Amino acid sequence: VSEKVVGVIGGMGPEATAYFYQRLITLTPARRDQDHLRVLIDSNAKIPDRTGSLLDGEGEKVLEAILASAQLLEDMGAELLAMPCNSAHYFYDDIIPRIHVPMIDMVEEVFARIEEEGLGQAGLLATTGTVKMGIYARAAGDIGLIEPSEEEQEKVHEAIYGIKASAGSGPGRARSQLLEVVEHLRERGAEGIILGCTELPLLLGPDKGISLPFFDSTEILAKATLREAYPRLREGPYS
Amino acid sequence: VSEKVVGVIGGMGPEATAYFYQRLITLTPARRDQDHLRVLIDSNAKIPDRTGSLLDGEGEKVLEAILASAQLLEDMGAELLAMPCNSAHYFYDDIIPRIHVPMIDMVEEVFARIEEEGLGQAGLLATTGTVKMGIYARAAGDIGLIEPSEEEQEKVHEAIYGIKASAGSGPGRARSQLLEVVEHLRERGAEGIILGCTELPLLLGPDKGISLPFFDSTEILAKATLREAYPRLREGPYS
Repeated sequence: VSEKVVGVIGGMGPEATAYFYQRLITLTPARRDQDHLRVLIDSNAKIPDRTGSLLDGEGEKVLEAILASAQLLEDMGAELLAMPCNSAHYFYDDIIPRIHVPMIDMVEEVFARIEEEGLGQAGLLATTGTVKMGIYARAAGDIGLIEPSEEEQEKVHEAIYGIKASAGSGPGRARSQLLEVVEHLRERGAEGIILGCTELPLLLGPDKGISLPFFDSTEILAKATLREAYPRLREGPYS
Repeated sequence: VSEKVVGVIGGMGPEATAYFYQRLITLTPARRDQDHLRVLIDSNAKIPDRTGSLLDGEGEKVLEAILASAQLLEDMGAELLAMPCNSAHYFYDDIIPRIHVPMIDMVEEVFARIEEEGLGQAGLLATTGTVKMGIYARAAGDIGLIEPSEEEQEKVHEAIYGIKASAGSGPGRARSQLLEVVEHLRERGAEGIILGCTELPLLLGPDKGISLPFFDSTEILAKATLREAYPRLREGPYS
């Protein structure tokens, strides 16, 4: 089995794409540059806002832009696609029949990790588009999905868009608001928290105060990408 | 003037490419995803080692790989190229006549910043390939370039390859070795330090102990890329 050239349908948002690629690099057991995967990234920040488009019934424009990006990456030689944006996964089933290489289903990967951990109920932190369009709910299977109240959902969405706006500056208030929501989700029975937006790990994550097991969709996508594209991973670490 | 699609000849190394893109995002005065540039990245980690190839007279293979990457990015729609690798800039003058869009000269940009600051002498931290092939020396003009001793150069090179090997883990010893070299360069008259390898800012940089003004080639390349690709930057900040 040989390595695959990875194509990244990116820019949704740019921060999340950069963080995803950073995670992919860090997770790769490389001793030199050439041990890393070849990765092609189309960070197309111009793709219309996902939540706005989905809630306004304008999703078709987002889908068209995603398909154009996928086509471009395939033309460049991508052999496996990854799309670090949860909201955009609304279109996953529409994308698959229109591409010619495999593409990782980030949402499915997240639930696979939750099942591995044996959790019965998980709380969801995601954009309003992801929540309202049921992107996680429709894939939850036997796992109970606990969503924030409408008022709390607005805070979560604002926190995420704060990351997009300020590129990480002044995240203190947004983080404490998110941690309050996490506590409420826990009180309502959540045994774990899905970071169901690829920008959330920039605010929440290891050592950032979450009191429950959490499932970082960006990290999970990076691990799944390596599993599918980097056969040396299965052969064990370098000797 | 409209925005340009940026193409990144990347993977030399992957860490430097991810960091370069991260800096580009952070420096962009964006309030939402769509305010960011579209960026196409070919992170081709498989390009042969630059120092090894240059010192062994095998540079042609590196040049061929760079030109293939540039061609791919142009075919995808890149309108401006950036290459976050100092050693690879050995080939800058060979690349220019064979591409059809502008490409930023990172080394020239670094010296422009040094001249702006009015420095007469600058110390160089870079890979052994960059130092021995004179990539900075040939572009120094009136600025006195102070290079580490041969023994110290080996330490600098090792520190850089340590970043490539460990993706940032255990950098303490490498950093203190580099800071020793910086002190010696200062004693020999350096008024500033060129971080002439795009991986060095991962070890050295703001708040990381350098006692002299320093010129971060990655950051400088990111700023030059924005200047050339993002006209809104010239129009001032958002109101």
